[in-house]
Amino acid sequence: MTAPGALALPVPASAVVIGTGLIGTSVALALRSAGARVWLADQDRDALGLAISLGAGDPLPETAPSAGRSAGPSAGPSAGPSAGPADVAVLAVPPVAVAGELRAAQSRGLARCYTDVASVKELPLAQARDLGCDLASYVPGHPLSGRERSGPAAARADLFTGRPWVICPQSANAPADVELIRCLATACGAQPVCVSAADHDQWVALVSHAPHVVAAAMAARLERAPASALALTGQGLRDVTRVAASGAGMWVQILAANAGPASAVLREVAADLSAAAEALTSLTAGDEQAAKELANLLERGSAGVGRIPGKHGGPTTGFSPVQVVIQDQPGELARLFQVAGAAGVNIEDVSIEHSPGLPVGVAELWVRPEAGATLAAALGAGGWPVSVRVAGSITS
Amino acid sequence: MTAPGALALPVPASAVVIGTGLIGTSVALALRSAGARVWLADQDRDALGLAISLGAGDPLPETAPSAGRSAGPSAGPSAGPSAGPADVAVLAVPPVAVAGELRAAQSRGLARCYTDVASVKELPLAQARDLGCDLASYVPGHPLSGRERSGPAAARADLFTGRPWVICPQSANAPADVELIRCLATACGAQPVCVSAADHDQWVALVSHAPHVVAAAMAARLERAPASALALTGQGLRDVTRVAASGAGMWVQILAANAGPASAVLREVAADLSAAAEALTSLTAGDEQAAKELANLLERGSAGVGRIPGKHGGPTTGFSPVQVVIQDQPGELARLFQVAGAAGVNIEDVSIEHSPGLPVGVAELWVRPEAGATLAAALGAGGWPVSVRVAGSITS
Repeated sequence: MTAPGALALPVPASAVVIGTGLIGTSVALALRSAGARVWLADQDRDALGLAISLGAGDPLPETAPSAGRSAGPSAGPSAGPSAGPADVAVLAVPPVAVAGELRAAQSRGLARCYTDVASVKELPLAQARDLGCDLASYVPGHPLSGRERSGPAAARADLFTGRPWVICPQSANAPADVELIRCLATACGAQPVCVSAADHDQWVALVSHAPHVVAAAMAARLERAPASALALTGQGLRDVTRVAASGAGMWVQILAANAGPASAVLREVAADLSAAAEALTSLTAGDEQAAKELANLLERGSAGVGRIPGKHGGPTTGFSPVQVVIQDQPGELARLFQVAGAAGVNIEDVSIEHSPGLPVGVAELWVRPEAGATLAAALGAGGWPVSVRVAGSITS
Repeated sequence: MTAPGALALPVPASAVVIGTGLIGTSVALALRSAGARVWLADQDRDALGLAISLGAGDPLPETAPSAGRSAGPSAGPSAGPSAGPADVAVLAVPPVAVAGELRAAQSRGLARCYTDVASVKELPLAQARDLGCDLASYVPGHPLSGRERSGPAAARADLFTGRPWVICPQSANAPADVELIRCLATACGAQPVCVSAADHDQWVALVSHAPHVVAAAMAARLERAPASALALTGQGLRDVTRVAASGAGMWVQILAANAGPASAVLREVAADLSAAAEALTSLTAGDEQAAKELANLLERGSAGVGRIPGKHGGPTTGFSPVQVVIQDQPGELARLFQVAGAAGVNIEDVSIEHSPGLPVGVAELWVRPEAGATLAAALGAGGWPVSVRVAGSITS
């Protein structure tokens, strides 16, 4: 259905983006940067206006004639929805709104191929089927962006850089349409990954949806805790709870749309925590088996963390931390990184330990193990107190 | 009981450290840096030898005569256990070993005042009482170090810099002894905080022990997850599970020693997660009340995170992030921080987003809100793609 010419294009030449929130506007910005012509639509006129003023695209004419999918490949960079369908329409709306927008867009013949960016995939597919949408031209997708903030003001053309972009090809999809969505993902700087909708939903429940609720359940304990208790907080609790800071509204929608897989993971976590609480109670009565059960949970946790891939696709434990005591003042980090750069050492990651109320901190620079000694020597010669460790963990 | 002269000392003039693991050796290094005379002891001769070679102190003579507490203030910087008791003995051994080591040290008259560094406080106190230790000269303590790695090789003189050091004064303690332990904490760079042993144990269960198990229970789900699922991992799951990477052995000991408070928190988290799983199941059946319950948990979580104090004692949300796209190459961060320093902007915190498999990343620089625009302008002029946001959260 997509013209052969489109296959050769590394970037869709034209796109309609329905929904100018964070993700939609970011997709639009990325496609514009890559040279595509982009039209925007949103029920919220303020959001649409802001996205347009950011340079994300032109407003989609509300009276655009339905050109139908037969308009074909004549729709090029200079063409638009008024001259024929765009190469692709991206439905950047909440999961429950995808199917309705898909049907509306298809009935207007806005594009030759349709995709979405919702963080669940089975629900929109089922609803699209129920609504009688054309499933052949709909290739579901989900860019896993590193951050989530609502609204076009938070959009960035590079939001998807280096992140996975899941595509869920359906049996009815033409290979060329799947390829077009792969090109869309690549044009946005993402890495396309083809996955079934069922697997996708299971996997994001595990790596995103359930962890969010787990963080919230831990953080909820802090709501009424004494301030003096919170003053003892180290990096450990900060990390465990950080994702729970974001707004509840969007997350209720996401969780509701992926209720089955998310609740399955949460039940397992709850069961392990109940068992751990029981084991602790038995431990005080001298139950050796309880100690083994608790140790087993902690060991499984440690093994699980070890399986999370690191920056370069390898384990995080492939890097070594070099610790440096730094003054909390302008220019201190510049001097530090200057010395590291001059020594030819590539810093893989950096974190600064919070030092409540004090004007000093500890910077932890993660480098390849073989570079640790070089960096430590260079920083030591520069006058910084420095320490190299084998890869360990922050526990506070 | 402590001589008046000792009160004026900002640093204990002499100390015995029993146990040369990470914490004991770090205390010893910090006290040496501050000018104190330090003697070291450990049942593990290798660990003791390593601590000595690191310059943490001199070996405590095993045949040191029992000088008794009456030896008094003549024990100065040039004196030692063989000439009379030290100002303080620090028992840097696991929680269950504190009471036994305390009794042994007191029977040898090693010091005029005793403290420990165990991460629970009620258990060692109860055991010291049971063993008939002198509770008047024992002032329990707990430095909340930001990292935990075992062994003297991981020790750092600055391990406690800016971190809270809990002291649990007992009714039998002389004020001068409590003051001496405050001086010890201050000499190590920490901020002494006086708390009851019961409160301490409740609080660390909340901010450290329970979060560790919660992270492990989430991370345990990853042990047998498909590698393709883990490839979708963003910063959110990394943060939630990070602390679970550390070894199980030490944590079983810590949790067992604080079983009551830790299990109480874990039961609450487990109950909330079970309820969330139930709510999700009800949600799919259209239960509006279930949506409210789930939203309530997420809102409580968000409120809880907001109560964690930030770097300068204020909320983390007091800072704004400036996002910059950076190349993954030597010198890139040096140039970035050079520009920030030249603009007179103080970077409060920095993190780099992992970009699996790609040679670019996004650095997030946290600055005071009023400095965000200045920094963004300076970096933009330097050629970096940059974005300022109001304080948000990483959710991936």
